[in-house]
Amino acid sequence: MRNIKLIIEYDGTNYYGWQKQLHQKTIQETIENSIERITGEKVNIYGSGRTDRGVHATGQVANFFTESRIPSEKFKYAINSVLPKDIIISHSEEVDSTFHSRYSAKGKEYKYLIYNRETPSPILRNYAYYVPYELNFELMQEAAKDFIGTHDFAAFMSSGSSVKDTVRTIYDINLTRNNELIQLRVRGNGFLYNMVRIIVGTLVDIGIGKINSSCIPEILSSRDRQRAGHTAPPQGLYLEKVYY
Amino acid sequence: MRNIKLIIEYDGTNYYGWQKQLHQKTIQETIENSIERITGEKVNIYGSGRTDRGVHATGQVANFFTESRIPSEKFKYAINSVLPKDIIISHSEEVDSTFHSRYSAKGKEYKYLIYNRETPSPILRNYAYYVPYELNFELMQEAAKDFIGTHDFAAFMSSGSSVKDTVRTIYDINLTRNNELIQLRVRGNGFLYNMVRIIVGTLVDIGIGKINSSCIPEILSSRDRQRAGHTAPPQGLYLEKVYY
Repeated sequence: MRNIKLIIEYDGTNYYGWQKQLHQKTIQETIENSIERITGEKVNIYGSGRTDRGVHATGQVANFFTESRIPSEKFKYAINSVLPKDIIISHSEEVDSTFHSRYSAKGKEYKYLIYNRETPSPILRNYAYYVPYELNFELMQEAAKDFIGTHDFAAFMSSGSSVKDTVRTIYDINLTRNNELIQLRVRGNGFLYNMVRIIVGTLVDIGIGKINSSCIPEILSSRDRQRAGHTAPPQGLYLEKVYY
Repeated sequence: MRNIKLIIEYDGTNYYGWQKQLHQKTIQETIENSIERITGEKVNIYGSGRTDRGVHATGQVANFFTESRIPSEKFKYAINSVLPKDIIISHSEEVDSTFHSRYSAKGKEYKYLIYNRETPSPILRNYAYYVPYELNFELMQEAAKDFIGTHDFAAFMSSGSSVKDTVRTIYDINLTRNNELIQLRVRGNGFLYNMVRIIVGTLVDIGIGKINSSCIPEILSSRDRQRAGHTAPPQGLYLEKVYY
């Protein structure tokens, strides 16, 4: 069996997230069906992690095992020829049989887009978080730095996750503003359920003045989800890269 | 009767363009229906110009006459409350009865987005023109300057237009590149049917090497549509501003 690694981009708007589920259209199932159409095999693809309904990706990674003799770099063209236009394979290669998209991952990078102006944007409605309130951007930038490092992020995890070890390391977090568009980039060794969205929601609450900008260390050490800010909506989130 | 001017943003993806037509969902009709819902009046709205199917706007302008006593600046909130999310009124004001969105317009500004990379982008598929070929960007920038000024743009008009006077003035044209994203901005006193899209198609053909970069003056003076480049697709085009 050959082990094929894929890098995947998708517009998550019209999907119920990455993970296969009954009676709902998901990214995983759509790709699996496409692979079946070109190889004739029923395959399971293993993603680097789930993305929620409405979340996008420019660098999701998945792998699958196949008996097909299609050259590994041709898989991308073959699968793309049957995929809908809101999903695309940007890269395919054969990897060692021990490679697993999820367990081999050493880190991830996410982007989050906010647009900050009076009226909602028809064009960005599915691609960014609309915040109509005035934001103190400098305070948000300042506060963001407190996430860098190794911390217990239990306060930044949505309930419903079965994860026990909530310690993660954030290598880098970066907030930039270009007129009405605010972009956050965050790189870390792993992320808890909804962690990026709760970090963004907390920074927005700081920008609005609902949370004090010096409170991040306190919120982290409280391990209390109630102390952190709201969960920012899914459509601003992009999985950009998975590191191996 | 009061004359109300609206500034309108829309995502053109799911509409058959601006102008009302039988059995097809259009921007104009959708806004007229929304105004009828809030005022009880059947109105005609006058746009600054048509946009084709799939073209977007961040600054389309339209006006309509009404007996309604809704304060002019409140119209925007009232109409937005019944509009679908892919159309929004960003501004409403009462104007002089002689104001007409189309006939009073002194100029317009358009943006056009191209993304230039190997694989198509799921996220930009409805918002930019996908060009997979290597582009000589400097040649495109150079050639773009030749459009500035007052010219007969007959070679840059699609057939099917009944316009007689094809002389227009371009005040400014600007091409910038940020990684894979190329943005064109063009400002002029008026634009012929598909003029911006044919200008973009011609610049792309110059970037690819299909048309010589020094040929713009020649193409202009030929007045021959066959001499100009292809018509770039609608989804990269944004009507950004109408000047009065």
